Amino acid sequence: MDISDFVIVGGVACGPKTAATLARRLPNASIILFQKESRLSYGNCGLPYYASGDIGSFEELTFTSYGVPRDKDYFDKTKGFRAMTGHEVIAINRELRTVTVKDLESGESFEHGYGKLVLATGAGTNRPPFEVPDTTTTSRVRPFTRPDDAIAFRKMAEKGQIGTALVVGGGFIGCEVAEAAGGLWGIEVTLIEKENQILPYVLDPEMVAIAERELARQNVDVQTGATIEKIELNDSGNPVVSIAGGDKITTDYVFLCLGVYPETTLAAACGLRLGPTGGIAVNSRLQTSDENIYAGGDCIESQHQLTKRPVFLPMGSLANRHGRVIAENLAGNETEFPGVLGTFLVKIFDINVGATGLSEQAVRKAGLEPNVIWGTFPDKPDYYPEYQTFVLKMVYDASNNRLLGLQAAGAGDIFRRIDVFASFLGRKARVNDLFEFEHGYAPPFSEALDPLHHLAAMAQAQQRGIKFLNLATDLSETDAQIIDVREPDEFKGEPFEGLSEVINIPLNDLRERSADLDISKKTVVICKRGPRSYQAAMILKAVGFEDVSILSGGLQSRL
Amino acid sequence: MDISDFVIVGGVACGPKTAATLARRLPNASIILFQKESRLSYGNCGLPYYASGDIGSFEELTFTSYGVPRDKDYFDKTKGFRAMTGHEVIAINRELRTVTVKDLESGESFEHGYGKLVLATGAGTNRPPFEVPDTTTTSRVRPFTRPDDAIAFRKMAEKGQIGTALVVGGGFIGCEVAEAAGGLWGIEVTLIEKENQILPYVLDPEMVAIAERELARQNVDVQTGATIEKIELNDSGNPVVSIAGGDKITTDYVFLCLGVYPETTLAAACGLRLGPTGGIAVNSRLQTSDENIYAGGDCIESQHQLTKRPVFLPMGSLANRHGRVIAENLAGNETEFPGVLGTFLVKIFDINVGATGLSEQAVRKAGLEPNVIWGTFPDKPDYYPEYQTFVLKMVYDASNNRLLGLQAAGAGDIFRRIDVFASFLGRKARVNDLFEFEHGYAPPFSEALDPLHHLAAMAQAQQRGIKFLNLATDLSETDAQIIDVREPDEFKGEPFEGLSEVINIPLNDLRERSADLDISKKTVVICKRGPRSYQAAMILKAVGFEDVSILSGGLQSRL
Repeated sequence: MDISDFVIVGGVACGPKTAATLARRLPNASIILFQKESRLSYGNCGLPYYASGDIGSFEELTFTSYGVPRDKDYFDKTKGFRAMTGHEVIAINRELRTVTVKDLESGESFEHGYGKLVLATGAGTNRPPFEVPDTTTTSRVRPFTRPDDAIAFRKMAEKGQIGTALVVGGGFIGCEVAEAAGGLWGIEVTLIEKENQILPYVLDPEMVAIAERELARQNVDVQTGATIEKIELNDSGNPVVSIAGGDKITTDYVFLCLGVYPETTLAAACGLRLGPTGGIAVNSRLQTSDENIYAGGDCIESQHQLTKRPVFLPMGSLANRHGRVIAENLAGNETEFPGVLGTFLVKIFDINVGATGLSEQAVRKAGLEPNVIWGTFPDKPDYYPEYQTFVLKMVYDASNNRLLGLQAAGAGDIFRRIDVFASFLGRKARVNDLFEFEHGYAPPFSEALDPLHHLAAMAQAQQRGIKFLNLATDLSETDAQIIDVREPDEFKGEPFEGLSEVINIPLNDLRERSADLDISKKTVVICKRGPRSYQAAMILKAVGFEDVSILSGGLQSRL
Repeated sequence: MDISDFVIVGGVACGPKTAATLARRLPNASIILFQKESRLSYGNCGLPYYASGDIGSFEELTFTSYGVPRDKDYFDKTKGFRAMTGHEVIAINRELRTVTVKDLESGESFEHGYGKLVLATGAGTNRPPFEVPDTTTTSRVRPFTRPDDAIAFRKMAEKGQIGTALVVGGGFIGCEVAEAAGGLWGIEVTLIEKENQILPYVLDPEMVAIAERELARQNVDVQTGATIEKIELNDSGNPVVSIAGGDKITTDYVFLCLGVYPETTLAAACGLRLGPTGGIAVNSRLQTSDENIYAGGDCIESQHQLTKRPVFLPMGSLANRHGRVIAENLAGNETEFPGVLGTFLVKIFDINVGATGLSEQAVRKAGLEPNVIWGTFPDKPDYYPEYQTFVLKMVYDASNNRLLGLQAAGAGDIFRRIDVFASFLGRKARVNDLFEFEHGYAPPFSEALDPLHHLAAMAQAQQRGIKFLNLATDLSETDAQIIDVREPDEFKGEPFEGLSEVINIPLNDLRERSADLDISKKTVVICKRGPRSYQAAMILKAVGFEDVSILSGGLQSRL
């Protein structure tokens, strides 16, 4: 029986990263990686962009930038470890410290010994909770998790065999494939999500509404709160999707984007502890309940840095960082993984969406009382050509001003703000710490004050009694007096829809004309983006209005 | 005599920001702002983009985004304070707590009393240390600091009166006007800088070389280390610039971009303490040596957060942040300004340049021993269309691994990395802290590991004995064996210029063929961007090569 110092199970992200780092730290160690599939180290997150046609050939996802395939030979010669593809680890014997490996080509199994074992078994694809056609009978209904899924779709799209498509599930992948199909290929897309919003759990509904409107603008028919009962094939072999309530949608192609689960079959079978989310439980050094076995990537359970609660967060970026931490620990350099914040970005046609930390819903679920601020911001000074605007939502702890989360949706550079905020979350920062952020400023890139500075100032105003209404607030039934502080031509040219009895007082006249208003009445100020309302609220507060609210984000956040 | 609770001197950035914030905090206070010029609160940093034609009309820099001019009326009615333009404060009587104000229209002076005084007197334009034509005799030689400078240039450019221009000084403004003139207007530009590099002090020479090459590609003739002796007008009224050594350049227009100095005439005359850089000395609450006088913006001296030394850093973004801090303190909310990091961004035609913290030169000047890492990175995965590459240089303290600075130059999203690094500097982070950064990852925006993660890993490798050669290292005379680990077609198609006796061993073959090399010899590995060299160095170290260096940044950083 062969024995290796280190045996690694899984060859996509965390596995190869662990093995390569380890080979650099311990060049004389014997390291072997077993991978069930024939492919190694492919850019799985790039699949939607291969499917969309943005990436020319599939090889680009599996080759280095200088054109060498990341295959067994590459890992052996360049990275210094042995990678065995088509080899599935089917059992772990923890007492003997061996794994049972099945050669999928020959069908034969053998035992391989290990000093330390690393599980990077990734994620499995969730099965639909409804009846679907047998995948052996159709190529028109399939998940979108593996390279073959992307390749199969693209082949059909290239041949013009798909005029309409239906995406089941509005998570990250669901949104990305909606764009992949609806973009270059011009496929008519319907997206079905059983929750009441797309991107559930990670974004709050009013932020998601911005993404939903973009999908609608791009002719994606988004149906939320819709439960699928079954998918069958009709006589011509096309999928027919039955929705609870009676609707039936006939389409050319169905993407099943129902998410993934931590693949823990091996770990569970050998008695490793799993966490409440179903992922393999690991300590901060990514060691499982067996000190000789480490685990990383999509198969583990993470701890949230802010709530300290277990979460399942399958992300390629985390998998890579896990790999480094595992390798360092295996090499004897004690290293901790700090837990996760849930930072993500997703492109949805012409807008960008992202978040870091906790959504408002998640904060409430964690039993904390959140304060919330929203704002619409240009990504550079609005005198600079081609500026774009996005909406930010900041959540912080009402009890101690600790920052808890930032969500972003819109056009332009949300990335910088999400990443900077993530770095603040990582240091347990409070609202006032944002004022100390010294951003890079030049008109082609940013304003003199960053949106993060403005959010901090707005949080201060909130604590001084200005109310920030959710940007999705329906004002049509309010008993408050509504003051639109835009200029008269804006007010007439682009009114807020569905509002009657709005009083238009341009900001510049508000101080003088505030005496005409009822000071005792609940008052809501509205404008295009928010800053004028903010200033208006300050003016009204100063002259004695007690209950003043701002419609956060302004009209722009509703477009 | 009128007496105001608060008197503010200066109406561009810090002054109006202080006044507006203060008016929100203390709505009943009497606040008056005196501004010498007729214009208020104009976007001074936008002037190059007005000059370039990118911004249509000058009003865009002085109007709000909704089309209202930021004039006296606006500040009075919207922001709640009185702004007096054309009023120059010419003296301060600290004992009486009065300022002497001259009405520039009538020529008459009056006294105005204050409770607290704020100096936001900005910066003055450095005079050339050489003879220049009297500005009353020509409109073809002038600085570029005030709106009228930008307006005057643009008028002439629009009329086609400028075919060639010469920029004196290669600082931020010099670079921005070189682009403004050479871009849309197609003016042939020469840029003269007396130091041996453009952007001196803030960027190290090898990083600046990337910007200098971009200027050359855009047909800007950059002459560094060139001292101007005088500028005269020839018979046709065109400026003739005499350079030490005998060269004379005749041109249509000269921009004098010789930097600015803190405008402290008023402060000095009334005996306020100035710092060693010449700026007004302030404490962390931005209070001057007189407890009743605060100061902010370009007229003050800042403290560097990392060196704790005084620096003069005139930046619109800092001026705005100063304004908030002063207003809070005046309103009784004790607030500190944390000092500066020197974060900046500048667009130079098709590349972006930026930095935060200390350059290598600045670190050495501060008496610290820096470790330095360079790398070339794509701004998104290189399988994703339209990715761009940039070069980063990280400087950290060799004694304790504390992060000291990041410099960036190249195409694409350097902003995010500069801003995130600035937030790490603000928290006194060390190299290993970068590993804990949870960035937003999706292929349209970023790689699974951020360049900041890679820099941290490279710093670790450096501490394990891999040497990172400066990306500008001249290898033509080295006695080391040079191994180019690129693929043979890359090696032949795009060779490093000026190198003879380079051994080409593709990375994948290096492990096998390392026995053919002289293990005892100094070895330098080179490749396209750096990662292959890094891997190659690890391989060579592992098989016993003792002295292995990487040519940082690879060939790409030299293009």
